[in-house]
Amino acid sequence: MVQSEGAYQAGQLLARGVARYLRSLDFSCVQEFVPARGLRVDVAALGPKGEIWVVECKSCRADFAADSKWKGYLEWADRFFWAVDADFPIGILPDETGLILADGFGAEIVRWGPETLLAPSRRKVQTLKLARAAMFRLQTARDPLLSPS
Amino acid sequence: MVQSEGAYQAGQLLARGVARYLRSLDFSCVQEFVPARGLRVDVAALGPKGEIWVVECKSCRADFAADSKWKGYLEWADRFFWAVDADFPIGILPDETGLILADGFGAEIVRWGPETLLAPSRRKVQTLKLARAAMFRLQTARDPLLSPS
Repeated sequence: MVQSEGAYQAGQLLARGVARYLRSLDFSCVQEFVPARGLRVDVAALGPKGEIWVVECKSCRADFAADSKWKGYLEWADRFFWAVDADFPIGILPDETGLILADGFGAEIVRWGPETLLAPSRRKVQTLKLARAAMFRLQTARDPLLSPS
Repeated sequence: MVQSEGAYQAGQLLARGVARYLRSLDFSCVQEFVPARGLRVDVAALGPKGEIWVVECKSCRADFAADSKWKGYLEWADRFFWAVDADFPIGILPDETGLILADGFGAEIVRWGPETLLAPSRRKVQTLKLARAAMFRLQTARDPLLSPS
């Protein structure tokens, strides 16, 4: 994926607002999560009943146009959302996907899109991966002298 | 539980060493995890196959003697370990439990103790709790301006 530094930073801001909002819905989040080799989603969220949502943050038209992988994310989540800011040309986004309007401080779901439930075996594996990814990152954040692994 | 500030800090150091060591075994850790209401374990660890271990860190004899709850931890883990430093009088620890020798920088398992596998339903619930606890804490660490929740 070709993505400028500016688009990356703008996407990170959207991800922060999305994560704050999802927390208000009692969903925990981890950013830049890898559900499977070669795929990296902007925000993966885990709900109180084990629901798994994926949110891709797009800062501008070019940022969306450069993403050739998004259809590959759908099979890794019960729900998939785009997150964009108020200036984004939302008409270019596929109708059959969820939509979140966001800025760096918060967000709101404006279209839910379809729910496609994960198979139990995949949900189990992904929940374990989310747990271990977050736990390893938290340890690294708390223990800066940890040897690289 | 009555626990002095010094014992608490010494326990935290042991927990850091334990977490570093468990990472070398490909176990992720979260500290001060609450598996059930009224119980707080020093270290909960999650292995690559979903194994759940609990480690209680004891800095001194008094720290161990003050812990009246440890038997209640056993049912929340596949394996349970004490973690103590080289000066600890290990003879006072129950034989039928795992034992880790630790300091602030590392650790080593010296006695495995029994393995008592969690029921699948409990493992599922606890894995989800571990994931959400770590994800929420990681978000708080990354986003200091997050409103308290």
